[in-house]
Amino acid sequence: MTDHHPGFAVILVEPQLGENIGMVSRAMWNCGLRELRIVNPRDGWPNQAAIDAASGATVPINNAKIYPDVASAVADLQVVYASSDRVREMQSRVVTPEFAAREIRGLAGEGVSAGILFGPERTGLFNDDIARASALIRIPTNPEFTSLNLAQAVLLIGYAWWSAGLNEAEDYVALGNTEPATREEFDGFFDRLIEGLEKGYFFRSPRLKPHTMRSLRTLFERARLSSQEIRTLQGVINALRRAGPYRFDGRI
Amino acid sequence: MTDHHPGFAVILVEPQLGENIGMVSRAMWNCGLRELRIVNPRDGWPNQAAIDAASGATVPINNAKIYPDVASAVADLQVVYASSDRVREMQSRVVTPEFAAREIRGLAGEGVSAGILFGPERTGLFNDDIARASALIRIPTNPEFTSLNLAQAVLLIGYAWWSAGLNEAEDYVALGNTEPATREEFDGFFDRLIEGLEKGYFFRSPRLKPHTMRSLRTLFERARLSSQEIRTLQGVINALRRAGPYRFDGRI
Repeated sequence: MTDHHPGFAVILVEPQLGENIGMVSRAMWNCGLRELRIVNPRDGWPNQAAIDAASGATVPINNAKIYPDVASAVADLQVVYASSDRVREMQSRVVTPEFAAREIRGLAGEGVSAGILFGPERTGLFNDDIARASALIRIPTNPEFTSLNLAQAVLLIGYAWWSAGLNEAEDYVALGNTEPATREEFDGFFDRLIEGLEKGYFFRSPRLKPHTMRSLRTLFERARLSSQEIRTLQGVINALRRAGPYRFDGRI
Repeated sequence: MTDHHPGFAVILVEPQLGENIGMVSRAMWNCGLRELRIVNPRDGWPNQAAIDAASGATVPINNAKIYPDVASAVADLQVVYASSDRVREMQSRVVTPEFAAREIRGLAGEGVSAGILFGPERTGLFNDDIARASALIRIPTNPEFTSLNLAQAVLLIGYAWWSAGLNEAEDYVALGNTEPATREEFDGFFDRLIEGLEKGYFFRSPRLKPHTMRSLRTLFERARLSSQEIRTLQGVINALRRAGPYRFDGRI
């Protein structure tokens, strides 16, 4: 997937701490983003603290390109966004990370390249840099506490992009080492269950029996049982039947 | 919003570094989450490193409750999730952060309380703890680099919950200090523009004029102009007309 989707360039404008650059590399690689551009890093380049902090996430940081200013860093890009929450100061278009993510994917489908500017740790982007972007990306956090560090901002926007490209099921049962039961296995189990229940006088009212059976079936269907679990449950039925009727013997 | 939606309890199981607990408090408060529970923190409690790292995000950490084991930490909750990517080891239900977020909001609407378990930094949750959860939450990151730290996992899941509750526009134009133009202002501007264009013989083909005008209008409508910008553009028209016809004088 990372090969088919170039994603977007992460452009760090005058980052201060090498450690933060490394953490950005980690956040990028978590989200399959490869292209890191750095404008005028305070502590120069290469930066050992950055490389150390990136531990393991080497692809973005090893390919990082350094630029003297924002204009040169975005020169070859076609659409530029700015990550900022200074939405009251500028009359910019403002989008959520999720909206930007879908837009970037749409643009990529048309062969259009995109990048996102992230400002220095202490100040964020200056208005002159924001003015180079066609839209602001504002991460909508708790108004009582909006402070996100650089890598967290990259992570949230990167994750929005990454997860927008996934076709994975949102809700499924992991199979472990087993197979989902076949319908035949399930029915075999269920028949054995009903047989046991009938012998145990479970169905007091013949009229209610169909309803009760449906409720029972629904309950077990919902669990999406594996073949192994079917065998286990059949063992449970057998064991319970072997155990014989419960008799209260006076002890607790 | 935070008052109406209790969100979910963040349950840290045997966290090691105080700094990480503080960063979790920050990530929680970014997302409006208040309820922090800590099972058996390695370095005891209270923990000054945790309080320092939480700087500013005091609500979750000041209300943190300490428990001796997972069972007591989840005792009063009704639905428990486990954050883990060990989906192959267990035959659990697996959901994305976004799916869990919607489910937790749906449950909250029914008065059902929820919590999410997060494991120790180095090992993640043990299978015994995962088995207490009704579902695993798996954050779908780049398979080549899935490593997320504790606070990042809390942030991504917390943000999924927080942003699922927002009704904000995903794409809008921030107004700065100005007002969107009225239709009358826009039409006044556009009429002046067309008038100038006619005088400048812009519309060479009378047949194409309606189409050209529509294209021009669409272009300016798309920009969603403010009153201030309308005035600026009218000034642009005036200035261009004052400037008179361009004459090539031989200099570059």
